[in-house]
Amino acid sequence: MSTHGGNAAGIQVVAFDGDDTLWHSESHFVDAHQRFCELVLPYVDDPHRIDDQVIGTERANLALYGYGSKAFTLSLIETAITLTDGRITSHEISSILELGKRLLDHPIELLDGVAEVVDELARTERRLIVVTKGDLFHQEAKVAGSGLAEKFARVEIVSEKDVPTYRRVMAAAEVEPEHFFMIGNSVKSDVLPVVELGGHAAHLPYAYTWEFEHVPGANGAQQGYHELSSIRELPGLIERVAAGGV
Amino acid sequence: MSTHGGNAAGIQVVAFDGDDTLWHSESHFVDAHQRFCELVLPYVDDPHRIDDQVIGTERANLALYGYGSKAFTLSLIETAITLTDGRITSHEISSILELGKRLLDHPIELLDGVAEVVDELARTERRLIVVTKGDLFHQEAKVAGSGLAEKFARVEIVSEKDVPTYRRVMAAAEVEPEHFFMIGNSVKSDVLPVVELGGHAAHLPYAYTWEFEHVPGANGAQQGYHELSSIRELPGLIERVAAGGV
Repeated sequence: MSTHGGNAAGIQVVAFDGDDTLWHSESHFVDAHQRFCELVLPYVDDPHRIDDQVIGTERANLALYGYGSKAFTLSLIETAITLTDGRITSHEISSILELGKRLLDHPIELLDGVAEVVDELARTERRLIVVTKGDLFHQEAKVAGSGLAEKFARVEIVSEKDVPTYRRVMAAAEVEPEHFFMIGNSVKSDVLPVVELGGHAAHLPYAYTWEFEHVPGANGAQQGYHELSSIRELPGLIERVAAGGV
Repeated sequence: MSTHGGNAAGIQVVAFDGDDTLWHSESHFVDAHQRFCELVLPYVDDPHRIDDQVIGTERANLALYGYGSKAFTLSLIETAITLTDGRITSHEISSILELGKRLLDHPIELLDGVAEVVDELARTERRLIVVTKGDLFHQEAKVAGSGLAEKFARVEIVSEKDVPTYRRVMAAAEVEPEHFFMIGNSVKSDVLPVVELGGHAAHLPYAYTWEFEHVPGANGAQQGYHELSSIRELPGLIERVAAGGV
């Protein structure tokens, strides 16, 4: 444990995940998935097959499509054709295209407490950045639509959130891992790679966790990261970490 | 005209467009488009309607989807349903999904002369970077698949190639416009914004120009950029520009 004696320079960069940390995202995917299920249900004998087939198709396409709404929409169309043995109508496929478009153009809704906390932290000497995964075009639109863009010194849109990515992000922000603090809803993508590099990280769970981000048995105390139940706890935690108290 | 007297520092950064400058891209879209036409032709009375509808759908979706193969595939599916008044079969829509997947996983083929020229320029003191537009995940895969990744100091994947983007790219590379040289196949995206900022740019046409990149009446001599007929001319041109001779 270092003793910076309350020196605010202990944390120089506070990095935020975007989807489901700053703004709602997965809830829209859950809605879209629900409407997709209703669409294909008349063709399917066992409803559990729908979820399995969606996840299987997304997984199979991940290396080709990457993350994001367009990838999701293409995988839903493929799933619909497979699940219905080709009986899905083109009218219903149009409905899936529409589901996908709604994922791309819904208004950005900040999560509870985000506006106040980002505003409070932006008034400190620490630099705030966003590190978000997914579709470049859509993520840029989300940052722009969040009303928070001017609060952030950098916005890093990345295709994967792993150790090499965070190493690159820290280098670009010219910050050493011990002065870097990341907050996000995914233990796998926002927390563990940062901790592995010697940085600080806090996990703030969202109501839903996407299947691919689930880490069984994750434990903050054992794995050296912080667990928050509200983003409002973040400024106090950062002060304590910066002071070397935690 | 400045007189750097042959000082190589006159050009510090050489920036390359990716698609259709370093590697083939549009030819694959043209192939996919051709196969799409064959697929929907049996449903359509006037073949010219196909091109018009594809371009119209892409244009309508551009603000939502951005650029890239996934955007293209989604627009083709939408076009097919519209053009055929919903008579397209789900089997044929599967074929469109496959066309899109082939756009994403074909091997990267460098254009003639690229490997040699990049290798030659990488042995100078100038830094080489890539500035490419489109899907983050796919463009990263293309750079990785090109075999050229280690030659480039930076890879900038951007959602739009306009003046603010190039200003940001130059700032990130810590280079002033007068020491920045961009080469690409699109006058609109690779050349004019760079010239507007006071940088140097060369246009190297590709066999095909995407409808949305076409600039009627573009003229290098009048608009202050260079026209190349082969990338092999690039090293000599850069030397002349660096020396203040052109």
